[in-house]
Amino acid sequence: MKDLESLSATQAIHALARREIKASDLLLSCLDRIGQKESLVKAWASLGKENALSRAKTLDKGTVKGLLHGLPIGVKDLYDTYDLPTAYGSPIYANHYPATDAVSIALMRQAGGIILGKTKTTEFASFKPSQTTNPHNPSHTPGGSSSGSAAAVADFMIPLATGSQTAGSIIRPASFCGVVGFKPSLGKISIAGVKSLSISLDTMGCFGRTVEDVALGVAVMSGDHAMAKVQELHNKPRIAICKTSLWSLAGKETATALAVARHAAESLCKGSVFDLVLPKSCNTIDQVQTRIMISEMSRSLAFEKNHYAKKLSVQLMKQLDDGAEVSYAQYAADLTSAIDAKASIQKLFNDEVDILMAPSALGEAPLIKEGTGDPIFCRGWTLLGLPCININVTSGPNGLPVGVQLIAGPGKDHLLLSTARAFARALPDPVLRDQA
Amino acid sequence: MKDLESLSATQAIHALARREIKASDLLLSCLDRIGQKESLVKAWASLGKENALSRAKTLDKGTVKGLLHGLPIGVKDLYDTYDLPTAYGSPIYANHYPATDAVSIALMRQAGGIILGKTKTTEFASFKPSQTTNPHNPSHTPGGSSSGSAAAVADFMIPLATGSQTAGSIIRPASFCGVVGFKPSLGKISIAGVKSLSISLDTMGCFGRTVEDVALGVAVMSGDHAMAKVQELHNKPRIAICKTSLWSLAGKETATALAVARHAAESLCKGSVFDLVLPKSCNTIDQVQTRIMISEMSRSLAFEKNHYAKKLSVQLMKQLDDGAEVSYAQYAADLTSAIDAKASIQKLFNDEVDILMAPSALGEAPLIKEGTGDPIFCRGWTLLGLPCININVTSGPNGLPVGVQLIAGPGKDHLLLSTARAFARALPDPVLRDQA
Repeated sequence: MKDLESLSATQAIHALARREIKASDLLLSCLDRIGQKESLVKAWASLGKENALSRAKTLDKGTVKGLLHGLPIGVKDLYDTYDLPTAYGSPIYANHYPATDAVSIALMRQAGGIILGKTKTTEFASFKPSQTTNPHNPSHTPGGSSSGSAAAVADFMIPLATGSQTAGSIIRPASFCGVVGFKPSLGKISIAGVKSLSISLDTMGCFGRTVEDVALGVAVMSGDHAMAKVQELHNKPRIAICKTSLWSLAGKETATALAVARHAAESLCKGSVFDLVLPKSCNTIDQVQTRIMISEMSRSLAFEKNHYAKKLSVQLMKQLDDGAEVSYAQYAADLTSAIDAKASIQKLFNDEVDILMAPSALGEAPLIKEGTGDPIFCRGWTLLGLPCININVTSGPNGLPVGVQLIAGPGKDHLLLSTARAFARALPDPVLRDQA
Repeated sequence: MKDLESLSATQAIHALARREIKASDLLLSCLDRIGQKESLVKAWASLGKENALSRAKTLDKGTVKGLLHGLPIGVKDLYDTYDLPTAYGSPIYANHYPATDAVSIALMRQAGGIILGKTKTTEFASFKPSQTTNPHNPSHTPGGSSSGSAAAVADFMIPLATGSQTAGSIIRPASFCGVVGFKPSLGKISIAGVKSLSISLDTMGCFGRTVEDVALGVAVMSGDHAMAKVQELHNKPRIAICKTSLWSLAGKETATALAVARHAAESLCKGSVFDLVLPKSCNTIDQVQTRIMISEMSRSLAFEKNHYAKKLSVQLMKQLDDGAEVSYAQYAADLTSAIDAKASIQKLFNDEVDILMAPSALGEAPLIKEGTGDPIFCRGWTLLGLPCININVTSGPNGLPVGVQLIAGPGKDHLLLSTARAFARALPDPVLRDQA
C-alpha cells in the first residue's frame, strides 16, 4: 500500500483494526514522509524510530484492544515522555529524560498509540520560536507554541499530535497550518507531567486533519472515550458570529474567513445564525488573561530563572520580569474578573446561544522573522476555559490557510465536535469538507 | 542559645532577620532534635544535611531579603526537589532525582527557605501508610497522607513543612498530631511539580505550630506575600457550627472538640454563632469526592500501573481498579454535581455565614494497625475547594490531640487565617492559645 501517511487518524485506526494495514507499514510511511520533508519543516525535536517500530510490530501481532491501536502520534515537547528526551523547548533541559510519561501520554500508549517522537515547541511554550517552518511556505511561521505538532500534522508526517494552549498555542498554529486544532474545556485533560507555564490557563489538546481525529485524540487523553465517536447533530444549534471587541485588528483574510464561515453556518442552521456582542464583563478578558499569564509565569519558571538565568532567552526574561511587576493584588483582582466573566458567559450559553464563531488569528501566518503571530484572538476564550476548535475555511493573499474557531459553552465539548463536523461538511470547497 | 527548635517559624524568621540567632544554629538544633527522635517517629524520607548547612551559612553571611530567610523547612516527599530524592512514597521512584523543584518549593527557596529534607508520605498520597508514628504515642498513626510533615512539625523537628490534600491529607494528620494544618483554596498554590493523584482535587498547603506560621508558608508557596501578615479581625464574623450529615460517625472526643470550639467562638463573636445545615446539593459531596478521586487516580497512575504493577501495593491496585470501574458518564455527572454544590456554597457564604466550624476527623488518632484514619470529614470541603485550617482544641481518651477545622468561603483565605488566630486566642487552655 502507498500513501498510508495521508490517511486520517480515524481512517488509519479503522484499517488497522480490520487488519487491512499494518502498524509497522503506517509508521514507515510516516517516517518516509518525515525523511523527505524534515530538513525543510524542522517539526521534530526528537524521533524514537527503533522503539516505535518495535512497538508497531508487537501491536501488529497482538489483539486490537485500545482506541489508538497502532496509530503513530507526535507529542509536543512540553509533555514528559520516559523514553524520549523532553526539553520543553529550552537548552536547560537538553537530553532530559523524565522518570515518567505525562498522564495523557500514558493514556495514549495504554490505548495502543505509538509515540513516534517529540515535536518542537517554542521556549517553555512562550514566544521564542523553534526552527519549525510552515509546511505551506517555509518563509512563514507555523505559529506557536505548538509549532512542530501543527506543522507535522499539516505536512502529513503524522496523523495526530498533542498540543497545549495557555494563550493561543493550539488554535493559532492550527489556523496558520490549515489543520484542525482542538482545545477542549479547561481541566478536561490532566496537566500532570506537562511543563506548566500558567496553572490557571494551561490547557491540553491536539491537532489532526479532521474533526473526528481530534475528537479521537482528546477522547483518549481525557478518558472520555465516548467522545471518540462524534455524534450527529440532533437539533439545529443556535450559532452566533462573534467578532469580539478586537475586530479592528483582524486582517482582510480573517474577515473573509468569517464571512465564509457565516455562509456555511447559515446553510447548516437556517434562521438561527446571528451576530452577538459579548457581555460587558468580557470587555477586558484579553488583558486579564495576559496579566494572569505573565504573573503565574514569573512563579512557574522561578526555578529556571534562579538556576539557569543565562540559558533563558532575553524575551522570556523580559516576560518574567514583567510578570513579577504585576502585583498580587492585581493578579487576585484579575482572577475575580475571570470568575465574573465566566458566570456571564455561562448565562449567555444557557439563554441565547450554543456555538460562537470567532476569528482564530489576525490573518494568515506572518513571516518567520516576525515571530509566531499574535494570540490575541484566543486569549479570552482560553481564560474562560471554553472548548474551542479551529476549522480551516479559506486562504489569504499569500495562499496560506486561514481558519475560524468554533467555541461552545463550558463543558460542551461533545456539542462542539458535532457542530464542527457538520460545519466542515457545509463548507463550499470539497477539499475543506474533508476536515469533517 | 538553646531550644531553637521550639521556636515557631514566625518567631524564628524575626530572630533571624534581627540577627539574634543564626540560621546554622537553628538548623543544628532541628538536626539535634531529629537525631534524638527520628528512630521513634520516622518522619523523614531523606535529609540533606550538608547542603542545608552550607546554605544556612551562606544565608547567615548575606543580607536578609526573603520572607523565609534562613528558615529550615520540611517538604512532603510528593513534591519534586532537584537536590533531594523524590520517591512519592513508592519503591518505583526510590532514588529518583527530578530535574527541577516543584514551583512552590522553588518559591520557598527563592524566599530564603532552607529545604532540610523530605518528609514521609503514604504511597502516592493514598492510603498505604509510611512508617511514621504519632509523636504523642508511637502506637498511633500520625494520619496521612502528609504523615511525616505533620509528625515532624508536632515533634519540634522542624517549624514548617509542606503538605497536600486530595481527600483529608492535611487537616486529618494536623488534628491527629495536634498542629495547625492549612489547606488554602483550591488552585491557590500551583500543583506543578507535585505528583498528581486527582487533578480536580489535589490541593497544596502546609503545617506549622501556629496560625501565623502556616500563613507564612502559604504566603510564600502561592506568591500572595500579604498573607504572611495575618490581619486583626475588624468585624465579628458570622460563625456557624456545621456538624455535617456525617455527624453520627463522630466519636465522643470529636463532639467534645466541637463543643469547646463553639464555646470559644461564642466568646469571640457573641450573638453571631449558630448551627447550620448545608444545602441539599451538598448531601452527597463526600461520595462525589470519592468517585471523582478514584476515577482520576485510575488515569493519573496509568503509567505506574502499566510499567510497575508489581511495585504497587495491593490496596492501591484495588483503588485503581475501583476507579476504572467508575464510568466516565458517572464521573462527568459527579463533576457537574460538584459545580452545583459549589454554586450553592457560594450563595451560602454570600448570604448567611463567614466561617464554618466542623470536625477535622472522627476522633483521636487510631492505632497504627488500623491505618491512617478516615478522611470522611474532609472529603466534601476538599471537593468544594474551600480554604480549611485545623486548630487543636482538646484531647481524647488516650490523651491524643483532637482538632476542629475552620472553613471559609471560596477565596477567603485571609479571613480564615484572621478568624483562626482570634479563635485560637479564645481557647480555654493557655497551651492551646499558643497556636495563635
